[in-house]
Formats: sequence, C-alpha cells, structure tokens
Amino acid sequence: MTLKVENIGLVKTQYFTFGEPPDELKLDSGKALGPIVLAFETYGELNADKSNAILVVHALSGDAHAAGFHEGDKEPGWWNDMIGPNKALDTNKYFVICSNCLGGCRGSTGPSSINPQTNKPYGLSFPVITIADMVRAQKYLIDHLGIKKLLCVIGGSMGGMQVLQWVASFPKSVQSAIPIACALKHSPQQIAFDEVGRQAVMADPAWNEGNYYDAEKPERGLAVARMIGHITYMSDKSMEDKFSRRLKDKDYSFKFITDFEVEGYLRYRGDSFVKRFDANSYLYVTKAMDYFDLSGAKLIPKAIDVRFLVISFKSDWLYPSYQSQDIVRQLKIRGVDATYCEINSTYGHDAFLLEVEEETRLIKHFLKKTFHGYNIAR
Amino acid sequence: MTLKVENIGLVKTQYFTFGEPPDELKLDSGKALGPIVLAFETYGELNADKSNAILVVHALSGDAHAAGFHEGDKEPGWWNDMIGPNKALDTNKYFVICSNCLGGCRGSTGPSSINPQTNKPYGLSFPVITIADMVRAQKYLIDHLGIKKLLCVIGGSMGGMQVLQWVASFPKSVQSAIPIACALKHSPQQIAFDEVGRQAVMADPAWNEGNYYDAEKPERGLAVARMIGHITYMSDKSMEDKFSRRLKDKDYSFKFITDFEVEGYLRYRGDSFVKRFDANSYLYVTKAMDYFDLSGAKLIPKAIDVRFLVISFKSDWLYPSYQSQDIVRQLKIRGVDATYCEINSTYGHDAFLLEVEEETRLIKHFLKKTFHGYNIAR
Repeated sequence: MTLKVENIGLVKTQYFTFGEPPDELKLDSGKALGPIVLAFETYGELNADKSNAILVVHALSGDAHAAGFHEGDKEPGWWNDMIGPNKALDTNKYFVICSNCLGGCRGSTGPSSINPQTNKPYGLSFPVITIADMVRAQKYLIDHLGIKKLLCVIGGSMGGMQVLQWVASFPKSVQSAIPIACALKHSPQQIAFDEVGRQAVMADPAWNEGNYYDAEKPERGLAVARMIGHITYMSDKSMEDKFSRRLKDKDYSFKFITDFEVEGYLRYRGDSFVKRFDANSYLYVTKAMDYFDLSGAKLIPKAIDVRFLVISFKSDWLYPSYQSQDIVRQLKIRGVDATYCEINSTYGHDAFLLEVEEETRLIKHFLKKTFHGYNIAR
Repeated sequence: MTLKVENIGLVKTQYFTFGEPPDELKLDSGKALGPIVLAFETYGELNADKSNAILVVHALSGDAHAAGFHEGDKEPGWWNDMIGPNKALDTNKYFVICSNCLGGCRGSTGPSSINPQTNKPYGLSFPVITIADMVRAQKYLIDHLGIKKLLCVIGGSMGGMQVLQWVASFPKSVQSAIPIACALKHSPQQIAFDEVGRQAVMADPAWNEGNYYDAEKPERGLAVARMIGHITYMSDKSMEDKFSRRLKDKDYSFKFITDFEVEGYLRYRGDSFVKRFDANSYLYVTKAMDYFDLSGAKLIPKAIDVRFLVISFKSDWLYPSYQSQDIVRQLKIRGVDATYCEINSTYGHDAFLLEVEEETRLIKHFLKKTFHGYNIAR
C-alpha cells in the first residue's frame, strides 16, 4: 500500500534569541556577536524522548521556510517536496527543524540586521563568519528545543557543508548525516565563482562599501552575481533541454536586448533574487563557503559513530561527484558506516531540489533504519 | 635532424581600408558599414603562385599581433609559439596572415572607432555584427593581398567559428580548415556565460548606454566579465594544480579582500584586461559568437572539397569535445576528408594556447600533406 503523500498546511516562522551580552557567541574570527536571532520553523511533533528530530540545513539562498505555506502564499517552502506526511522527511514520524543561517537575511541575524549598539544596520561591521559559526548558532537552537541528539542533519550544497560541520563540531549530538551535492572543502573553481559574484556586487557603486540600507540597493551587481550562480546550478544538458537556442522573438534582434530564452531566464532569475536577498548577506555567506575546509583530520576522526548517506548527482559540475566520493572514501577508510549514491540526473547542481523521487527512496529507507537502530540502542 | 625553431623578429601592424561609401559592406543585420579598416599582420613570404597563404583567426580577446615582437615590447604576439621559422605555421614555408576582427578594438573598425559621419566614436550606433560579417570583411583583405585560395584557415575558440564560417561563406577560397576548440553553434550554456558578461558590463553605470569614450570607462563591469571568462577558460583540475586553496597571506583575513591566490589571479586578469579592451567591443564580439549557428545545411554541404583537421581538448568544458565530435560526425557522413584529434590536456579551454607541442605535431603534418596535395593538384 502506498501511503498518501500530503502537504503540510499553514506554518509560521518562529524566532529564537540568544547570546545577549555578556554571553555573546564566540566566532572563528576571534570576534564575539550577540544578541543573535535565529528564524526557524518546525514541522511534525517532537516525541517524548526527543529522539525523532531532524535538522534541515539550507543552501546559499535558502531560508527557514522549508515546507508548508505561509498565510496568503501560493508557493510552499523550498523543500516542500521532501518534507510532509509520508514524504522523505515524514512529519508523521519525525520532528523537522529548519533555521535560517547566521549571516543570512531571512529573519536570522546578519549584516542587514540592526546593530543594537548603533541602532543602524551592521553592514560591513558585521563580523565575517564561517560555516562552523553557523553551526555553533544552530546548536544553541537545538539545545533550546531540548534536543540532546539529532536523529539526522540533512542538506544540499552549502547545507551539505553544514551537515559535515555538525559532525565535526558536535559529533555526539548527531546520530546520522546526509550531506548532498557538497564537498569536504571548497575547490579553487568554487571559490572563483563565488569571488566573481562578490566582485559583481562590490563593483556596483550602489553597494557603497556595504552602506546602502537607507539608499538605492546594489541590485544590478547582485543580479549579475545571481545569474552567474544560476549557470553553475544547471548542466550544459539541462540548459539544452530547457532552452536550446530558442529565441524570444522570431529572429535575431541585432540589438543588445534579450534574444534567447536562456538570456530571459537568467535576467528573470537575477531580477527576482534581488527582491528577496540582501547583497551583503551574499558576500558573507559565500565567504563562509569559501573558508570551508574540513580536509585533513578536521572531520573524519570525529565521524566514527555517525551513520552517513552521501548523495551526489552525475551532471553536477559545480560540486562534482568526485568531491562526494572523496568524502565517502575517507569515511570508509576509517570504518565509518557510510553509504554513497550518485543519482543519474541531468539537472546539474539543481538536482538536489528536483530529484525528489530518487532522493525520497534513498532517504526514507536510510532514516527508517537509523531511527529503528537508534531506538533499539538506547 | 630537428630543425631549429626560431622567433620572428620585429613586426609591424598594417592597415587595410575598404568599403568607402557607396561601396559599404552589407551586413547580416541588413545594415551597411563603411569605410572599414582592418588591422593585420603578415609573417613569411607569399610565394609566386600565392598558394602558401594561411589565415589565422583570433579568439574573443585576440588581435592582429599573432607573432613576433612590436618595437619595444618584451612579450611577443598571442600565438608566437605556433608561428615562426620551423614552428607549426612555418614561416619558412608559409605566408601567415592575421587580422583583428571587425567589431574589435585593436586597430580594426569597431564600436570605439570614429564614425566619419559624426566624428565621434560609434558606441552603440555601431551595427550589431555576426561571425559571417567578420569573415566577409576578412575576404576583402585576402582579395586585396591577391590570394585566390587560402591554403588553410586556422583558429581556436571564436577563431574556430570563423574557420567554419570561411568554409560556409567562401568554400572555393579555402583549401583546408583547422577549427580548434569550437562548435557548430553556440549552446545555451555558452550564450549564458556571454550574456552574464554583457550584463556585468551594462550594469556598470559608467557604461552609460555605450557612451563613455570621453568619460570614465566601465572598467569594473568589464573586469567582472573578464573574470567570469577566465574561470571558463580553465578546468577544475588546472585551477587545482595552479592554485589549490593557497592563501595570499598566512591565514584567513576575515575581511572582503583577497584571501586565496585564485582570487588574486582573477582580479589581476580582470584589471589588466580593461586596460587593453573596449567594453563595447566585448558586447559586440560576444553577441556575434552567440548568433553563430552553422547547424543544419549551413556548413556541411559547402565543405565537400575542403580538408579538415578538427582539434578539441579533453578538459575543455566551455567548448566540450562533443561539440567538435559533432562537427566531425557531420563532415564524415557527407564524405568530407576530416581528421579529428582530442588532445588529452588538463588545461581546459586555454589549452588551444598552451598545448603547443601536441598541436604542432598535428598541424605541421596536416599542413605538409595539404600543401603537397594542393600543389600537385594544380
């Protein structure tokens, strides 16, 4: 019998504040930050012994709204296909948490937040943060929710890096980990794409060294950064399938306007992104990704007691499969319980948001086994 | 006995003017343009029956100065490794011509040239051109030099497209063709990268709808465009080999400055490019590439009597080998004499400038056979 997959209904974002001075969060940079607000959502019910909690961690442009609908919205959260009754992260069984990352701009404290000491937005006075800092902040939230050990931490892209960082930073608090389409460290090519995006933002005079909150925003620069991103999220093949060389009009315009559908798509994605994302957050979050490096002894020795499901996608050239295979190889050498699957997708890096059926099959089974094993062991 | 490979000494750029009204060049857009200047250089001597001429066609940012040294310069022309006595294009045997493309900014007529009707730079009043227009202009130069049939047309990247266009437009004027690291048509991914580069230029307020010639230039936008380009010219592997995650300083800066060597490289390449290249030319030349499409019956039926050597590079993901293989497959179906070689390089698209030894071996042999066969047949 196939169980009926349902959507979660209305959801609300919640806010958790911690790190009030003098208890600020200590950051990798040596600086301290506080108070910190984390925007988060939860789906499903935490069970009595708090053993069914799954933390979902989002990618560069994601937020706390992973599933269900906000009042008045037509579009659900960003991973709605994966979270809900009888879905991969089955809210009939599991308590799912998602929080907007530190440094973000969707309710959590970031460069666009008001600095309580100046009553103005932080801008570039916001300290540069790392993926480990994001995870440190999330740990406060998990503690606040009374959860000692997460059944699973799961996420794709930058979410996958946070998954790995959770294991490295708090191995005793993680039962299992599902890093998707990510890497143990950012490669020079990954750094290069991020850096060009940052340069595009900073080249926009409206950026004004990060001080634009009461003026025109650096929307053109940020749109260019996002357009670069979108090319890297798709594969050559998926662009061919989706756009080929189709024109917007009948023939070439012989002007510098949108000739090809693919150009229109990129402009649309760029323009819509700037309405919902802060340019400074783009700088901070991409910098955190570039600083990410769990190679050497930073992850693997800590991962011994964590079960892993590592997923990559064949056509993903931004986070190529060899990077996931490298994680798995290193885990297996140390005897860690790690399963690897490369999904034969043509969608490129975007596949982690699109290959719902394959991911559901893998993740549902993995979580079931983990949950069962966990509760027997206790 | 290995023959001694030598450099060409001092060379000078020459200028050829044609298309004086009312004999303007008719363009694909339907517009007419003239007078037109083409900057060009030649190396070696044209033989008595003018059967030893090779036309070298350049890539996006190239120019007429392909080999030898300009007075006072320390760096030679852009393909100096391939052109000279006993090199791949052996100037003891062949007469080598290279011209800056129409629409360029290195001596040939382009958007930064003075419009004789207004005595001001064309800017965006310059007509949008195509690869076929570039080749049309080159044909005037070849006619002017008294050459009826080119022994070979050779070039990489956009140069390769011009090679294919020469065959499509003037099949009787081409004995052989060597398209390197190119495609029969620009794919949506290739269009997308070009479009983001254009958007970066046009997002710079200094661009000012193309009117910046007596003011500040859109250098920041153009630098971003060039940085995007440079990422696509290298492979993931060649970036890893060249930069890995090496830092400029001992540790992370926790600032938005250059942390990684790869970032410094990109900034340097971006900043140096804007000193020698016109932003409007960048728009025009990339647009010409995006319009390029010789699929269907536009090339192959014309190519019957032309010998082909098609070269691609294994790690080139901007112009992947499958695109070159597609050219070869279509040529072979029609019975065209076509040889294909994929060079096992890790340099990515840049390989066409770097894999000198392999290219020399292939091209020298191919030209020798072509030249010999050509002169027997006559």
